[in-house]
Amino acid sequence: MDDTKREGLTRRELFGTTAGAATVSALGVGAGLGAGGVALTKAMAPTPAQAAEGDHLVDPGQLDEYYGFWSSGQTGEVRVLGIPSMRELVRIPVFNRCSATGWGQTNESIKILTEGLTPETKEFLETRGGVYTNGDAHHPHMSFTDGTYDGRYVFINDKANTRVARIRMDVMKVDKIIEIPNAADIHGLRPQKFPRTGYIFANGEHRIPIPNDGMILDDPEKYASIFSAIDLDTMTVSWQVIVDGNLDNCDADYQGKYAFSTCYNSEGGVTLAEMTANEQDWVVVFDIARIEAAVAAGDFTEISGVPVVDGRAGSALTRYIPISTSPHGINTAPDGQHVMIGGKLSPTVSVMDVTKLPDLFDDRIQPRDAIVAEPELGLGPLHTAFDNKGFAYTTLFLDSQVAKWDIGKSIRQFQGEDVDPIVDKVDVQFQPGHNHTTMGETKDADGKWLVSLNKFSKDRFLNVGPLKPENEQLIDISGDKMTVVHDGPTFAEPHDCIIVRRDIVNPNQVWDRNDPTWEEARMWAERDGVSLDDGSEVIRDGNKVRVYMYSVAPTFSLEKFTVKQGDEVTVFVTNMDDIDDLTHGFCLANYGVAMEVAPQATASVTFTADRPGVHWFYCQWFCHALHMEMRGRMLVEPRAT
Amino acid sequence: MDDTKREGLTRRELFGTTAGAATVSALGVGAGLGAGGVALTKAMAPTPAQAAEGDHLVDPGQLDEYYGFWSSGQTGEVRVLGIPSMRELVRIPVFNRCSATGWGQTNESIKILTEGLTPETKEFLETRGGVYTNGDAHHPHMSFTDGTYDGRYVFINDKANTRVARIRMDVMKVDKIIEIPNAADIHGLRPQKFPRTGYIFANGEHRIPIPNDGMILDDPEKYASIFSAIDLDTMTVSWQVIVDGNLDNCDADYQGKYAFSTCYNSEGGVTLAEMTANEQDWVVVFDIARIEAAVAAGDFTEISGVPVVDGRAGSALTRYIPISTSPHGINTAPDGQHVMIGGKLSPTVSVMDVTKLPDLFDDRIQPRDAIVAEPELGLGPLHTAFDNKGFAYTTLFLDSQVAKWDIGKSIRQFQGEDVDPIVDKVDVQFQPGHNHTTMGETKDADGKWLVSLNKFSKDRFLNVGPLKPENEQLIDISGDKMTVVHDGPTFAEPHDCIIVRRDIVNPNQVWDRNDPTWEEARMWAERDGVSLDDGSEVIRDGNKVRVYMYSVAPTFSLEKFTVKQGDEVTVFVTNMDDIDDLTHGFCLANYGVAMEVAPQATASVTFTADRPGVHWFYCQWFCHALHMEMRGRMLVEPRAT
Repeated sequence: MDDTKREGLTRRELFGTTAGAATVSALGVGAGLGAGGVALTKAMAPTPAQAAEGDHLVDPGQLDEYYGFWSSGQTGEVRVLGIPSMRELVRIPVFNRCSATGWGQTNESIKILTEGLTPETKEFLETRGGVYTNGDAHHPHMSFTDGTYDGRYVFINDKANTRVARIRMDVMKVDKIIEIPNAADIHGLRPQKFPRTGYIFANGEHRIPIPNDGMILDDPEKYASIFSAIDLDTMTVSWQVIVDGNLDNCDADYQGKYAFSTCYNSEGGVTLAEMTANEQDWVVVFDIARIEAAVAAGDFTEISGVPVVDGRAGSALTRYIPISTSPHGINTAPDGQHVMIGGKLSPTVSVMDVTKLPDLFDDRIQPRDAIVAEPELGLGPLHTAFDNKGFAYTTLFLDSQVAKWDIGKSIRQFQGEDVDPIVDKVDVQFQPGHNHTTMGETKDADGKWLVSLNKFSKDRFLNVGPLKPENEQLIDISGDKMTVVHDGPTFAEPHDCIIVRRDIVNPNQVWDRNDPTWEEARMWAERDGVSLDDGSEVIRDGNKVRVYMYSVAPTFSLEKFTVKQGDEVTVFVTNMDDIDDLTHGFCLANYGVAMEVAPQATASVTFTADRPGVHWFYCQWFCHALHMEMRGRMLVEPRAT
Repeated sequence: MDDTKREGLTRRELFGTTAGAATVSALGVGAGLGAGGVALTKAMAPTPAQAAEGDHLVDPGQLDEYYGFWSSGQTGEVRVLGIPSMRELVRIPVFNRCSATGWGQTNESIKILTEGLTPETKEFLETRGGVYTNGDAHHPHMSFTDGTYDGRYVFINDKANTRVARIRMDVMKVDKIIEIPNAADIHGLRPQKFPRTGYIFANGEHRIPIPNDGMILDDPEKYASIFSAIDLDTMTVSWQVIVDGNLDNCDADYQGKYAFSTCYNSEGGVTLAEMTANEQDWVVVFDIARIEAAVAAGDFTEISGVPVVDGRAGSALTRYIPISTSPHGINTAPDGQHVMIGGKLSPTVSVMDVTKLPDLFDDRIQPRDAIVAEPELGLGPLHTAFDNKGFAYTTLFLDSQVAKWDIGKSIRQFQGEDVDPIVDKVDVQFQPGHNHTTMGETKDADGKWLVSLNKFSKDRFLNVGPLKPENEQLIDISGDKMTVVHDGPTFAEPHDCIIVRRDIVNPNQVWDRNDPTWEEARMWAERDGVSLDDGSEVIRDGNKVRVYMYSVAPTFSLEKFTVKQGDEVTVFVTNMDDIDDLTHGFCLANYGVAMEVAPQATASVTFTADRPGVHWFYCQWFCHALHMEMRGRMLVEPRAT
């Protein structure tokens, strides 16, 4: 680090280097502290092949051609973008606390955030406000029918607190969040592609004792990691598989037979040096029918209410295919046959042929026989995306490039033919992780656009201080050569994304008054004999007070209500405006209370009225020319002293 | 509403109408429920004057010319954009809870979020997690020296919980948040422009009893609203003024003599009908020297530790200039002389001449004599921005337009000359609130770009369900005609913004290890005899445990640490990487703990280790090729049973 500084090299030059200049050993693996970044023996200035902005533009008033669903990493939300304009259209709160919508505070969101937690976690959160307020959302994917997106749901993992969330596409809101029992720290997540998304597969990355109750602590050989199959419709865990190694990313086939996960740490270590000691790790292949049969036959252990089967090496339920140490990305090609496994610490991508898997499970071939190509693409291959012409696009983290390569040629090369599968490379800025093409993880890949999600922006944007944006770049892949057309700065972190043709996603303009989201509010209203739609009532029930009001711009139906200091107050607000985009809000000033109420929705919030006096509530979601005048007062009578 | 539906009119058509079709009475003021939006007698399709995208583009790798500082309304953060690309560069958490950075959870952020609260609020928050997790951030403004931005700080109000925050421009982080005592719900906020920003002026919008302890409840004539002057350097309230009416927006002159606020609700009412009954409200002008003299002379009441002077009608400290009912925006022109007051419910903008104010305070002229022009611009004039050629740009909310007008001509028209001050109008989509030009609120206004922050996007973007983005549009104002060049969707809500020349803002690339942000961490480390920079220690202090570690990619200096169930654990992490953009994170899985540690920073978090077992912590801010391997374990020994 100091050396490179003395030589006057900037980080930008370091990151812009090409493949020849760095070696995997330069990563400093095992060197412990001091690596500080990517050490290189020689630095070269990048020579980017970039077009001017222009060909991806969407004129004012024109619509994008694709929806992008973006994870946000440690921000914990999902973002919806328009592609190719790369404009953020809306944020969907998921694992985060959202000031704007009241996510994490409204009764409706608290129900979603808590009902799928384990009893242990519910108890743990009791002294912490009842809900987690952070998450680490990596991998958004849409539900499939017949090998392509069906527009029903988007799913997302939470690595921070071991959860999986489901987002309804009709209203673009989360309706289910579940904690995955037994597993630790859900990382890879993918839906079944065929015949439809029955299961969502989820990788518990970290090895922990099961159960993790403190009886086993520093005894790593008793740790295990867990692969889970979640039922889409019920959002419950159907079954789990104990595996060897740390589960990383996963994907599924187009035939509905197998799922597969990259695994590292075949050593079962707990430190960086231990985990990267072996030359090889593996891909674990899961035979879904065999696992389902084992569960049906009772051949499982029930842990935390879930059937858990043993899929460790030697099991009939799984196969372990050796891959160079620490494979990372795993992506099934739209041809329905080939699965690309990113080498990460190896310069290769291993191509697995799913048609070999029946023979592998029947022990007619060896595990490595399922690998039909292993092209050397460059340094740090992580994730692969696809077009509709037989090409694959792999991010090269260390080279800061995307490599376009010919799948067919890579197989012929592996068979001994003297062909070069690499078609084109383009520099990206800097250090790409995931990438994604338009419709690229479905059989309807169309080869128009590629997004490269780069981990560092460095000096690509105006300096905003020590905390810099990442950089998502849009690349035109419609021609023979790839062309970077747009740099997009993003707040932490655009970890992964999918890009969905716009005709597939058809949200509602307003809520349906019968939506199940506010079924508890409806139940309370019925019990109190009040209509949510046009009731303006204050119901006292001991020291509990339920306040019902509705809103039609620019007024709340209650101009004031009175409660007593110490009352537990629940306010129900129903937005009776039915015009699209006419969202209201309810913000109770100096009480830390605020929520969104979109057209035709009901929302509610419960708080203790322990601050006496006059407190204004107001509409904080702009609604009308007299929006600022839309308000009322909560009068809190002081406790008799 | 139903009528327009039957006629087959879309909301888009309704909003696109021109001035002639609607009248103020059509707002349905006083009609209570049922208005539902803007009622019109005739709807016309919009005929927008729009250019194709193109002329505002910033090619990949090129830098924007301006920083934009954007409020986010009810989202509670501040956003930094690049202009003219309109790309969001970074989010600065302010009044919100941020999953990515740990804002609201780290000890350093909790200190900032709590140290400026009143004792009553601290007590109130004790049972609510200790901090507010929502805000309503409206008006970002930069500190001034000699009438132009000086790049030191940006300020922002919180209407939801009556606070003001200061953001350091060297690191783009908040360092001070104060609650404004006595006032309710801070709305308008502006810094002093000359000779430098000594004061930040802040409007308490809502009238409440003072003190608001519940002894006065439904007795509105005993309510008051409060204008505050906050000292920039100390972030304490220097003095406050009690005024008549509800304080709305405010601004200051270029001479350092006066501040002024729009006021509505001269009636002192508490309902919409009462508040809009009068024909006129006013602008209140504050004479800063007179107020300072009154405070120095002891001519004040001390309330909650703040000197409060009486500035109600008749006071020598203020003047009340009548304006048509409910004036809204107030913007001082770069000519240093004219102040534009948006009519909102009147189609006029009133132009106040600050050179008349000395005579007004000396009672040599009448209040209305300070008004030197009152051009009729269209329906719903709200806010005015400026170029360097004597033109003003006013948003017309109801007309969904921006009007460009000639200040000089408006004055000549007011003097009886037959001239039309309106130069150009452009349709915007839809319903603009604030607008802002490049450097437009300083003497260095340069007339290049105008941003119109529109409250509704309707069908301008792909449908994302009932909750739609707003639309910030970029308008080229360098020529005679205004041209909309870009539609920018934004999540709630781009309430207001400023646009600052990039040479003025010069943030650091990494933190200074001596930064005061982590002074308490430094104090604890010194007490424990540990170095934050290179110490790896676990210090037990009764049932309190302090864990010190540092990070250099790709490792934490502690691979594991052991605590006992029930311990109160504080983890200090110092990022010793000093390369720009090499941010680390600390995420303690299944404990709901996550924080950002930017290069050369220290961050800390405190939690109770009440969940026994093995818990992995990992780096959740991407740092290195082996980022995923950067982790360790917290072993929590179970409590003896």
